[in-house]
Amino acid sequence: MADSTISFARGAPSLDIIDVDGLRDAAARAFANDPAGTTAYGTSVGYPRLRAWIAERHGVEPECVLVTNGSMQADAFLFEQLLRPNDEVVVERPTYDRTLLSLRARGARVHAVELAPDGIDTAALGELLATGVRPKLAHIIPNFQNPAGYTLSLAKRQALLELAREHDFIVFEDDPYVELRFSGERLPTMLSLDPGRVVYASSFSKTVCPGIRVGYLVGPSELIAAVAKLATGTYISPNMVAQSIVYEFCASGAIERSIETVKTALTKRLRTLEVALRRELPEAEFVTPEGGYFMWVTLPDGTDVGALFKAAATRGVAFVKGTDFLLEGGENTLRLAYSGVTPEEIEEGVARLAEAYRHLP
Amino acid sequence: MADSTISFARGAPSLDIIDVDGLRDAAARAFANDPAGTTAYGTSVGYPRLRAWIAERHGVEPECVLVTNGSMQADAFLFEQLLRPNDEVVVERPTYDRTLLSLRARGARVHAVELAPDGIDTAALGELLATGVRPKLAHIIPNFQNPAGYTLSLAKRQALLELAREHDFIVFEDDPYVELRFSGERLPTMLSLDPGRVVYASSFSKTVCPGIRVGYLVGPSELIAAVAKLATGTYISPNMVAQSIVYEFCASGAIERSIETVKTALTKRLRTLEVALRRELPEAEFVTPEGGYFMWVTLPDGTDVGALFKAAATRGVAFVKGTDFLLEGGENTLRLAYSGVTPEEIEEGVARLAEAYRHLP
Repeated sequence: MADSTISFARGAPSLDIIDVDGLRDAAARAFANDPAGTTAYGTSVGYPRLRAWIAERHGVEPECVLVTNGSMQADAFLFEQLLRPNDEVVVERPTYDRTLLSLRARGARVHAVELAPDGIDTAALGELLATGVRPKLAHIIPNFQNPAGYTLSLAKRQALLELAREHDFIVFEDDPYVELRFSGERLPTMLSLDPGRVVYASSFSKTVCPGIRVGYLVGPSELIAAVAKLATGTYISPNMVAQSIVYEFCASGAIERSIETVKTALTKRLRTLEVALRRELPEAEFVTPEGGYFMWVTLPDGTDVGALFKAAATRGVAFVKGTDFLLEGGENTLRLAYSGVTPEEIEEGVARLAEAYRHLP
Repeated sequence: MADSTISFARGAPSLDIIDVDGLRDAAARAFANDPAGTTAYGTSVGYPRLRAWIAERHGVEPECVLVTNGSMQADAFLFEQLLRPNDEVVVERPTYDRTLLSLRARGARVHAVELAPDGIDTAALGELLATGVRPKLAHIIPNFQNPAGYTLSLAKRQALLELAREHDFIVFEDDPYVELRFSGERLPTMLSLDPGRVVYASSFSKTVCPGIRVGYLVGPSELIAAVAKLATGTYISPNMVAQSIVYEFCASGAIERSIETVKTALTKRLRTLEVALRRELPEAEFVTPEGGYFMWVTLPDGTDVGALFKAAATRGVAFVKGTDFLLEGGENTLRLAYSGVTPEEIEEGVARLAEAYRHLP
């Protein structure tokens, strides 16, 4: 990749939308307000004040919350606790590539169920379950899904929970993008609809910054206690300094301002991307996401996105191939992340992408 | 435990020997000097500047270093990479309880070899190896061992490496206390004596603070690369904010001042503990450690330290039973940590402990 490569590949925010000064001030307050709690080992459930803050946001008891070193670590603990080799798991099709890799590394039997613009195809899931598939859990990214940008409708949230109750599986609600809604109405979490059936995960990577590595799980207190034991055995305790900084950032209201900054910038980036794609690459089909970082693009049948990837790289533009998010198929799809690029870069990047497309054999 | 309990149990520093102001200043510099690197995801090998700083301290290339969320997490990755169920492992007898638990949880066959005041009994290890035991690795805490406080002599460091070469196992040199030497001469690390045969782990928990959760591995670059892949799959990247703070703390020289503060305080605490034990509980046998956090105490044969533990708890003093650090035996032993208690608390705590001992049935 050239230095001047424009990257639609990385699902990460650009530095200009991170409140660095707010973080520095939160760090100063963390060491001043609670020097003992910030510098000591703490416990594996997380920094108590942040745990309580998260619990209140979700209307649960602190005993239902475990704060971890990023939400991928939370996923890893949850899978370690719940899954054994050959256990069945349902995922969305497409879904986050790291989740697919993690599930496969554990030897899970992964069933991918088609994702529609209003979320996972619950009718198809019902049919799959009727064939005797008995998943331990269904991994669902309900809002502005990675990679598709789609959002699960309220009706489908309810249908999914109904299936979970009927077939006794856990809904793993993986929700890092929920705060980044640009349009439309916020939907209730599945956690709030059926707390006994759902394990919820989220993170501060998209609302504070990724380098702070603070994520969390919310679930039944017995399950959280079991995961806390795994966490103790793995790392004694997560990062108290980072969690205390996040707590101060949240408690001061800086997080609400940060979310507004991110939403304002990403709304503009998404709008720029949409307009540029319609103008430069009208063959691209997509559903405009209502929030989050990602747009899923489908090119005409037969388009070789693998070849496009290479042609784009030589022109200094990067994206992730759709096939990375799928067990099979999707050769004509790609994911564009608009979180880390400025509107100017988006204009230029789409022009380069379109030129690469025009030059495909 | 009563609020007024004096704890010789926890291997953690008291707040008064942590440079909280220095940490706050380091945090401010981290966000000012490298806002992008501090707030972004980074990579699984760790924050580049800290990685390079550690590499230089150990005279290795940065490719040989992986910085993790605390050194327990480093251990966990190393064991995940190297050990399969039923693999044989050598540990010291006694050894750190969390390492024992972690090895057992992985189904390793653990061989505990007696620890003498000058380190693991290398002659006994040689005899064990002669019986056909083929360990993948030997876990060794060379300096001011946890729980015994003993230090491995130079002659035994060399003998151990000789055995490792002859029988083709890795020496896992677990060295979190190395900087906290109060007396005697610093010995070369086994890593420096035979870099191809040793994986080295250490941490900033004892020199910066535990809540910062920064540890690291040093080893052959191919092994480090393999462990980095595990780390990527587990948590994408470790805490960049914390590692950037540690880097600034180190680069500014604050860490050297912090180490002096800790050493000065702990030297006094250890001296107080020694004198108090000789006066109040002359039955206690111990070897005065040359550094670190811990003293291992042996009471007369037949003493029931389990009963002493309960009797001490009712008198408001806590310690860890020796049996926690052993696969079997050690019923008349205990570990006293002097890292988290003031000299005044040590005086009072030893008086309570002696009283509990006098009242044993």
